[in-house]
Amino acid sequence: MTYSQPEVVPQVGIVMGSDSDWPVMKAAAEALAEFGVAFEADVVSAHRMPEEMIEYGKHADSRGLKVIIAGAGGAAHLPGMLASVTPLPVIGVPVPLKYLDGMDSLLSIVQMPAGVPVATVAIGGARNAGLLAVRILAATDPALQGRMVTFQTALREQAHAKGKNLRAEAATLHQ
Amino acid sequence: MTYSQPEVVPQVGIVMGSDSDWPVMKAAAEALAEFGVAFEADVVSAHRMPEEMIEYGKHADSRGLKVIIAGAGGAAHLPGMLASVTPLPVIGVPVPLKYLDGMDSLLSIVQMPAGVPVATVAIGGARNAGLLAVRILAATDPALQGRMVTFQTALREQAHAKGKNLRAEAATLHQ
Amino acid sequence: MTYSQPEVVPQVGIVMGSDSDWPVMKAAAEALAEFGVAFEADVVSAHRMPEEMIEYGKHADSRGLKVIIAGAGGAAHLPGMLASVTPLPVIGVPVPLKYLDGMDSLLSIVQMPAGVPVATVAIGGARNAGLLAVRILAATDPALQGRMVTFQTALREQAHAKGKNLRAEAATLHQ
Amino acid sequence: MTYSQPEVVPQVGIVMGSDSDWPVMKAAAEALAEFGVAFEADVVSAHRMPEEMIEYGKHADSRGLKVIIAGAGGAAHLPGMLASVTPLPVIGVPVPLKYLDGMDSLLSIVQMPAGVPVATVAIGGARNAGLLAVRILAATDPALQGRMVTFQTALREQAHAKGKNLRAEAATLHQ
Amino acid sequence: MTYSQPEVVPQVGIVMGSDSDWPVMKAAAEALAEFGVAFEADVVSAHRMPEEMIEYGKHADSRGLKVIIAGAGGAAHLPGMLASVTPLPVIGVPVPLKYLDGMDSLLSIVQMPAGVPVATVAIGGARNAGLLAVRILAATDPALQGRMVTFQTALREQAHAKGKNLRAEAATLHQ
Amino acid sequence: MTYSQPEVVPQVGIVMGSDSDWPVMKAAAEALAEFGVAFEADVVSAHRMPEEMIEYGKHADSRGLKVIIAGAGGAAHLPGMLASVTPLPVIGVPVPLKYLDGMDSLLSIVQMPAGVPVATVAIGGARNAGLLAVRILAATDPALQGRMVTFQTALREQAHAKGKNLRAEAATLHQ
Amino acid sequence: MTYSQPEVVPQVGIVMGSDSDWPVMKAAAEALAEFGVAFEADVVSAHRMPEEMIEYGKHADSRGLKVIIAGAGGAAHLPGMLASVTPLPVIGVPVPLKYLDGMDSLLSIVQMPAGVPVATVAIGGARNAGLLAVRILAATDPALQGRMVTFQTALREQAHAKGKNLRAEAATLHQ
Amino acid sequence: MTYSQPEVVPQVGIVMGSDSDWPVMKAAAEALAEFGVAFEADVVSAHRMPEEMIEYGKHADSRGLKVIIAGAGGAAHLPGMLASVTPLPVIGVPVPLKYLDGMDSLLSIVQMPAGVPVATVAIGGARNAGLLAVRILAATDPALQGRMVTFQTALREQAHAKGKNLRAEAATLHQ
Repeated sequence: MTYSQPEVVPQVGIVMGSDSDWPVMKAAAEALAEFGVAFEADVVSAHRMPEEMIEYGKHADSRGLKVIIAGAGGAAHLPGMLASVTPLPVIGVPVPLKYLDGMDSLLSIVQMPAGVPVATVAIGGARNAGLLAVRILAATDPALQGRMVTFQTALREQAHAKGKNLRAEAATLHQ
Repeated sequence: MTYSQPEVVPQVGIVMGSDSDWPVMKAAAEALAEFGVAFEADVVSAHRMPEEMIEYGKHADSRGLKVIIAGAGGAAHLPGMLASVTPLPVIGVPVPLKYLDGMDSLLSIVQMPAGVPVATVAIGGARNAGLLAVRILAATDPALQGRMVTFQTALREQAHAKGKNLRAEAATLHQ
Repeated sequence: MTYSQPEVVPQVGIVMGSDSDWPVMKAAAEALAEFGVAFEADVVSAHRMPEEMIEYGKHADSRGLKVIIAGAGGAAHLPGMLASVTPLPVIGVPVPLKYLDGMDSLLSIVQMPAGVPVATVAIGGARNAGLLAVRILAATDPALQGRMVTFQTALREQAHAKGKNLRAEAATLHQ
Repeated sequence: MTYSQPEVVPQVGIVMGSDSDWPVMKAAAEALAEFGVAFEADVVSAHRMPEEMIEYGKHADSRGLKVIIAGAGGAAHLPGMLASVTPLPVIGVPVPLKYLDGMDSLLSIVQMPAGVPVATVAIGGARNAGLLAVRILAATDPALQGRMVTFQTALREQAHAKGKNLRAEAATLHQ
Repeated sequence: MTYSQPEVVPQVGIVMGSDSDWPVMKAAAEALAEFGVAFEADVVSAHRMPEEMIEYGKHADSRGLKVIIAGAGGAAHLPGMLASVTPLPVIGVPVPLKYLDGMDSLLSIVQMPAGVPVATVAIGGARNAGLLAVRILAATDPALQGRMVTFQTALREQAHAKGKNLRAEAATLHQ
Repeated sequence: MTYSQPEVVPQVGIVMGSDSDWPVMKAAAEALAEFGVAFEADVVSAHRMPEEMIEYGKHADSRGLKVIIAGAGGAAHLPGMLASVTPLPVIGVPVPLKYLDGMDSLLSIVQMPAGVPVATVAIGGARNAGLLAVRILAATDPALQGRMVTFQTALREQAHAKGKNLRAEAATLHQ
Repeated sequence: MTYSQPEVVPQVGIVMGSDSDWPVMKAAAEALAEFGVAFEADVVSAHRMPEEMIEYGKHADSRGLKVIIAGAGGAAHLPGMLASVTPLPVIGVPVPLKYLDGMDSLLSIVQMPAGVPVATVAIGGARNAGLLAVRILAATDPALQGRMVTFQTALREQAHAKGKNLRAEAATLHQ
Repeated sequence: MTYSQPEVVPQVGIVMGSDSDWPVMKAAAEALAEFGVAFEADVVSAHRMPEEMIEYGKHADSRGLKVIIAGAGGAAHLPGMLASVTPLPVIGVPVPLKYLDGMDSLLSIVQMPAGVPVATVAIGGARNAGLLAVRILAATDPALQGRMVTFQTALREQAHAKGKNLRAEAATLHQ
């Protein structure tokens, strides 16, 4: 594994158990890209390459990562196992599989024992994982925090625009 | 509301909907105290003082807070509402109430829509909320990160000690 | 936000977090239209425009609204937050999202703490939200209550007609 | 059944399947009493006295009731059955029984088919049922609505007082 | 409602809340037809025609019915309400609706209070409802019980035949 | 196993996996005793004595039993296995164990495949199992059916009496 | 039933309640074939041929089987019943049916009472059932255990290859 | 960690995340002791000593272990992680924690991805984990298998004895 793809040192590592998780996890990468936060993405499987997974977690901070985003489904062990070998904040994304709508993934990630936290987001909520990583980095980076405020203002404006359309559509129901 | 109780500027705000949540949420405060992280704790109810809640969230960053920890139970709206008015990372603690074992609290906190993340920890997992706040602050604070590594080492040593005791106890089952 | 679309003062406000909720929530509007109850419909997002949401709730009664219907999905905070800032009855509609079949939406809406009630209807039950608003208005409006009685009689007659068809169809199973 | 106990005509009927529900349902009565709303309370069992139950529902409006509050547990049919025979708004309270923490009660009450709504509150949430009845009556009663606003202000003040105590208690955790 | 379609007096009444339940409930009728048990089928809605529903239940035994099969979905009240007005055994079929996979239907039917039993079958298990009605009638009808034994023998033979096919198919996996 | 304890031939067999189920299952026996229906009770464990269990089921009808009531908890296989070897109606009682509040017991009993029905009652609902057995026997026994009607009338009267007490108690809440 | 299809004595018996389970259960057979472990596959229905099922279980060990894999859905009794009549390890595969996503199957299989264990794998996890059987046989077969180690190494290499592809794909998100 | 406590080489390793799991997990050790199977017991925490956990799993087979039993609660990662680094069969015991009745533990253990099986037993089912380990060892050890058969016979006899007592007790309910 080499993590040379971004030209700048990545601040966020996005990892998942299999490339089949990528369609869900991609949204985390896109959110980071929108904020100009350098990231790396990789397959780091807790169950198929446990030792490399441990190595990934152990060296994440010395490699310059500030936050890890880990997505996993079913008996989802990756976020918690990484959190046990790194002092970095780890964000867990419950990936829904074919059955149970991601409830197994959610409980496997969020119900960590005292001592080893995982910051869990919604089932399939990879975009929010990316945005949470931005907020974490922004806590000590005023410029980035300013971009988050701008982003939140844009969300508000989009909601207003949607309201305008909705009011027009709803008006057609009145006689 | 004045937040003058700590002599240093608090970095973490611990808020909850009612003082009845304090027996659970106290563990977050204790974790922060162990790491020497200044915090404030207060009742900020989404449902009983919604405007003050909005105010609390809006001014959290300018007051110097870096992370908000919000605990709530049942239809738990506090963490998500705060996240909607602050660019800071918000950690949500699902507080279990009399029925449903906190499953309602968990889903009300973690299932946030895209755009507004809440970093959710386990049901009743306030200690981990405190530790997650430390990890977030430590991402850009090498000294604090060093203390987190030390803490993790201590966890390991405690586990070894427990193993020693358990081996002794289990040996008594052998003839 | 202006609410000028109906020519009469609306008695019911139908709000939702996003226009993506409209296909579900439209049934509430249609029910009100059937009963000739004036309504307005709008996007009022708890998470994307929290301050406007608070404003909407605070002024709902003085603007002449008698009932608010709020639909939301996932960590569904809109109905409960509106209920916290208005003395009006608030009806909550749990909108089902991609996962969990609306169970998260239901619990986030119905499990409100003592002091701030939300009148919750079935998952995806926007039509019943509209009918409940009619019943509420009809409690002190004999003419409207009469129309509700007529509506209930029609339901009964439809059920009888369905029974007639079913008996005919079932008869084909007998030799 | 005679409903002569209050000296004024009751506006709200509080009914339940058994007197064993009273410890839960009493909170609805107390909320109404706080607001000076006249009520009656009775055992009206869907399963043990179905015909009287139908009669109760059919004549509720002509007897002057404006709102019905019905509590039931397990396969909780009372609220929905009453809603099917009255044009009044019916509020359902899921009463938790020995097993399942009231989840069966909740689903049996809230998941009503289109046409017959029940305004459902939280599991065991009888106090909110009472407050919801007040809000419904207050929608067309400015004086009562004023008392609801006063009540909401008092909730806010209590939350502030709790915050003051909590801040003092939390301060003891700081060195 | 007239129940003249079968030329013989029906022994089993199959009722459901709406003709939309018929695609599920039809399997009960087919099972009865296979065993030559006379039945009637009808729409009897607890929520849309409650009084007729009560009448249906009250006169079921005097009309000659021995067993009632009632299917319903969501807040499924029909089986339990019928059981409350008839001394006949009532079989409940939880009909799955669009959300929750029939879990709401199941709990609304099976969790009846002490005193009023409903014999509940699987979610969507209308065929088994028909077969259970046959077993009930067969308990005091040796000829019918003999046909049930024959039916069970046929089930066994079908399973043997399936095994034969499966062994052949599985053999292709061996080298 | 000899079933000589009742002096008359038992009509109902009450079986359970262990005598630890007796505190729950006893209520079925008591209900039968109230109606003068002869029964036998025994431990017939699907998992600990599977062959005797099969034998019990196979000979139940020839021994004169008309109905079997089977209680079991957890992976509750007894009711379904008995139903597979007898043409008699089998009533299943989900016995709640230490965890999961009987939800595992309920699903293990009720979700039978097409062909082999089990008449399932509520979690812990042994009394209703007894009453259901009475209804089944009463379907072809007018005298017994008459006693069931009397029983239902008594339930109604008890509910009325409870209502009287409740009205008195509720009246104390009025000023 | 004859089990002559493999030329060698089968070590693993794969059984299921119906051939409709084969599309799921086939993966167990394929896993065994990959490891060169001789197996047989058959329909052995707990509910449709209970006595043959008992016979199958009772003679499994004397016929030379070392492990039984049993798949079943809904009220899934096959794995537990077989475990009650054989001293062999029994692996249970919860087969998901049309409703409930296999949660009923899982609980019916895994929640066995003390004394009679079933080794349960994931919902629909037949491939893992095959691999678990290999591990069990390999515990005392060094050559087979060596093949399992080789298999695990291959899993790791596949994960590495997926990572390579993912890194390439993710790089396209960077500017 | 040294595993010298038993005088013979242990065949089964019983591990758990904390000594607080011992009251549950002890039953596995006792079952093994009853069968004279040598075992070791230790604390091996996935989250507090992840590297030692990996080491434990990697060397388990070369140290002579044949089966691993791993108990864990909440986000229970220990069984799955061990299974990823050993070719031995791993038995997972879901330990119930304070909330959710062990449902989180169960799903975290049983829902393993294809490739890495965990043999899961019931929530809190440590005794069955021990018995399953015996069955696994007995698959190639006729003497041990004989003891399992004897054990199963004893279970049957205990059930018969319980039946005798129950029949006597039930007889007192007859007049």
